[in-house]
Amino acid sequence: MPTLGGLATALELELQGDPERVIQRLASLESATPEDLSFVSEKKHLSKLSGSRAGAVILHPDWAASWSGCALLSDTPYVTFARATRIFDNHPQASGQIHQRASVADSARIGADVSIDAGACVEADVVLGDRVWIGAGAYVGHGTHIGADTVIKPNAVICHEVRIGARCTIHPNTTIGADGFGFAPSAEGWVKIEQLASVIIGDDVEIGSNSAVDRGALEDTIVEDGAIIDNMVQIGHGVRVGSRTAIASQAGISGSTQIGARCVIAGQVGMAGHLTIADDVHIGGQGRVASSVTEPGHYSSGTPIQPLRAWLRSASRFTQLDQMARRLSELEKAVGLEQKEDDSA
Amino acid sequence: MPTLGGLATALELELQGDPERVIQRLASLESATPEDLSFVSEKKHLSKLSGSRAGAVILHPDWAASWSGCALLSDTPYVTFARATRIFDNHPQASGQIHQRASVADSARIGADVSIDAGACVEADVVLGDRVWIGAGAYVGHGTHIGADTVIKPNAVICHEVRIGARCTIHPNTTIGADGFGFAPSAEGWVKIEQLASVIIGDDVEIGSNSAVDRGALEDTIVEDGAIIDNMVQIGHGVRVGSRTAIASQAGISGSTQIGARCVIAGQVGMAGHLTIADDVHIGGQGRVASSVTEPGHYSSGTPIQPLRAWLRSASRFTQLDQMARRLSELEKAVGLEQKEDDSA
Amino acid sequence: MPTLGGLATALELELQGDPERVIQRLASLESATPEDLSFVSEKKHLSKLSGSRAGAVILHPDWAASWSGCALLSDTPYVTFARATRIFDNHPQASGQIHQRASVADSARIGADVSIDAGACVEADVVLGDRVWIGAGAYVGHGTHIGADTVIKPNAVICHEVRIGARCTIHPNTTIGADGFGFAPSAEGWVKIEQLASVIIGDDVEIGSNSAVDRGALEDTIVEDGAIIDNMVQIGHGVRVGSRTAIASQAGISGSTQIGARCVIAGQVGMAGHLTIADDVHIGGQGRVASSVTEPGHYSSGTPIQPLRAWLRSASRFTQLDQMARRLSELEKAVGLEQKEDDSA
Repeated sequence: MPTLGGLATALELELQGDPERVIQRLASLESATPEDLSFVSEKKHLSKLSGSRAGAVILHPDWAASWSGCALLSDTPYVTFARATRIFDNHPQASGQIHQRASVADSARIGADVSIDAGACVEADVVLGDRVWIGAGAYVGHGTHIGADTVIKPNAVICHEVRIGARCTIHPNTTIGADGFGFAPSAEGWVKIEQLASVIIGDDVEIGSNSAVDRGALEDTIVEDGAIIDNMVQIGHGVRVGSRTAIASQAGISGSTQIGARCVIAGQVGMAGHLTIADDVHIGGQGRVASSVTEPGHYSSGTPIQPLRAWLRSASRFTQLDQMARRLSELEKAVGLEQKEDDSA
Repeated sequence: MPTLGGLATALELELQGDPERVIQRLASLESATPEDLSFVSEKKHLSKLSGSRAGAVILHPDWAASWSGCALLSDTPYVTFARATRIFDNHPQASGQIHQRASVADSARIGADVSIDAGACVEADVVLGDRVWIGAGAYVGHGTHIGADTVIKPNAVICHEVRIGARCTIHPNTTIGADGFGFAPSAEGWVKIEQLASVIIGDDVEIGSNSAVDRGALEDTIVEDGAIIDNMVQIGHGVRVGSRTAIASQAGISGSTQIGARCVIAGQVGMAGHLTIADDVHIGGQGRVASSVTEPGHYSSGTPIQPLRAWLRSASRFTQLDQMARRLSELEKAVGLEQKEDDSA
Repeated sequence: MPTLGGLATALELELQGDPERVIQRLASLESATPEDLSFVSEKKHLSKLSGSRAGAVILHPDWAASWSGCALLSDTPYVTFARATRIFDNHPQASGQIHQRASVADSARIGADVSIDAGACVEADVVLGDRVWIGAGAYVGHGTHIGADTVIKPNAVICHEVRIGARCTIHPNTTIGADGFGFAPSAEGWVKIEQLASVIIGDDVEIGSNSAVDRGALEDTIVEDGAIIDNMVQIGHGVRVGSRTAIASQAGISGSTQIGARCVIAGQVGMAGHLTIADDVHIGGQGRVASSVTEPGHYSSGTPIQPLRAWLRSASRFTQLDQMARRLSELEKAVGLEQKEDDSA
């Protein structure tokens, strides 16, 4: 286990207090013991310091007076906390070997120190960069290229001819590059449109578990560098997810929609197809995005939960809204009040 | 196939009618034949008895006069029906063996009569209780403990250091213990927060297919005894799901939210993070839970479907609601009607 | 690569222009080069022809005057485009062999030219039609029947005793036939209702990745011929999806709901259980379907996104809607305006 002094050196921070103190783990202010390192991410949490038993705390230098114990001083305490989690990381390590029960095509080109675990299947003409880790039971389809240091977790499926960059993580049971949902209606039923394009994922992208990124019909689906995508997210065919955009769980992006850089798309947001979303757009949970968003900023939709009986009344009135608006206009006419807006629509 | 008398004995119920009658299967009142056992779950369904051809019916004793045929009398007919399904269960049985194409680490501790099917992978230091069944292609990560009689279905993924209790079922393609979605924003992009804690699942928990329960960053994600979780449910990192709480398909619970006991969360509900939900709270389908719920009861949100043109008008008026409320106040002032509430917000 | 003349013959279309011109690929009008074949799906897109560099275009005969280059004339240009994608299809082909690392039970009945890839598991009494392709790591449970030319993609799980027709595609990580979510509440907690029925899928059905179709408790779950289902779709136990109905990503259909033929269910729609949806019903994205729909047509629900502050006002007013309606009635009474509707509810 590291000492505070060792942590200060590794994280390149100024230390207040005893450099020899040994730190056992990271913990929240509430649960930290004298053996733990904690952190204050925002000024509004400073009040929690008084009750904390933490052995040391990551703090902004401006807040140092609020804490008499050991401290690591950082201009960006939350980022420092994130970096510290790597030092305490307890994930299993890659074997650096190809398991005898993995199936690897002869024509696959395998980099140095690649790990391929039991039951994984790597098809013909795959290219794996150095230190790539293909988890147990994962599938990598024909001709797919995966960049150095990328990890494909157990039972994830990467279909044929996909491109994934370096330092990415694809979590378990996620599917990259299955067919987009494209069919033409005909008198004899739906006629499948073969999805001839692929998926291109940049560097430093993380995609959660049980998500799906579909391959394009004619244009590739693209996830740009540094984007982060949570669990059970649907990325339709031909979508572009801009650099460093974050998409939370169960959001769905319909085909051909183009999302800018640094957007934050909350959980269960749904976006229609063929939209353009500007850079730096934030959409609140369950947001219903049916048209393009041209201005950065925060947007939301939906209604708040209410006790059931109250909600039934609200919901019923919602369907009468247009009538209510018209009655309001009639009243204004009758009373002689000027209308404040055109509500004749 | 059992006789009615045998069923009465097994289910510890009073029988009306012929104990020698053989029952072939369970069926609804509408589709039951004279060889089938059916049931009336609630008094309101009694009217269906008159048209039913069922060979026997599970009934509350108070309703016995409504049916002249064979009957099994139960104070809780729906629970009795549930218990009866076990007698007619037709699921394939466990082999009780470790398949030669399973990969099991030498250091794994395997209980009595454990089944591990083809292509499954059990990593180092795993502990499997008696009669655990690991389905084909499933993955059990390093150091994970699984209690007696728990079934992990094909291609499910249980990551490292997870704890799962006894008599649980984890359905196919579900992921337990993948990383929670934790990243700190920095000038250089998102910095990953390694998820250092784990997932703890109690006894008698069922989790459907294609769901995800993420591991915690610093605090474990917890699913308490007797909770039931449907397909494609997202349980974020650090969430607690209380005992006997039911969560229906495609609901999503964001990180650190604490849900009480005996709640019922309907399909596609979305909960923000860091909330507290009391015991015995029911949330209706697609509910948008953005703040804590402190009182038990039924809650709902959203709007009902309407024909498209009518809905377009309602939705448009929704965005004018605040103006409408202000116009209403102006009218009330003009007419000299007292305002019933403060709507100056 | 085909010539225009070859394409005209294969697609049975009239060709305008040089039959010897070689076509390298299909492309949109915007990105097509002189080596590419493009298409105009609808009249409203004709204006894009003027800027296109396409080597040839699939066009309706009525629009032929709008384009001076090579053309394939079709009464249904979008369907023709879909058919053309098959000619340019670049998906990997089946091996026609049973991989030595597949696990196939002795009692399974395997048709001609079946492919079973590495790590796949085919259980006892399975029946696979001719040319069925079971992808790497996929699972086919005891007694399941799969019709000719159906493809089960990598890591999909088909549980026991399921019936799947001919020419279907089940995409990766999808689960067919896991237990429906059925439990009876008792004083001792939830009592599981064993799901004794199964899933029946017709011919020419496509189901996307990471979806789930649950087996029924007493009645089979049914997906009729020609239905198409996208990614992460939940089909509850006992549901019937009518012929040629399309269900988009992340929609969820609760147990026992019956959906008619040729419906279009958009992304993230949620349907309650035990409903009946008529033929030819279209439900817009995120639609909240809480009661049966008896008339064909287009329906929608929800509210549009707004900038956050404006939305907060709208959402707050939504909870006051019933009061607003009552105040409106009071005003109408005070002013002597006749009420246009019964809003005493």
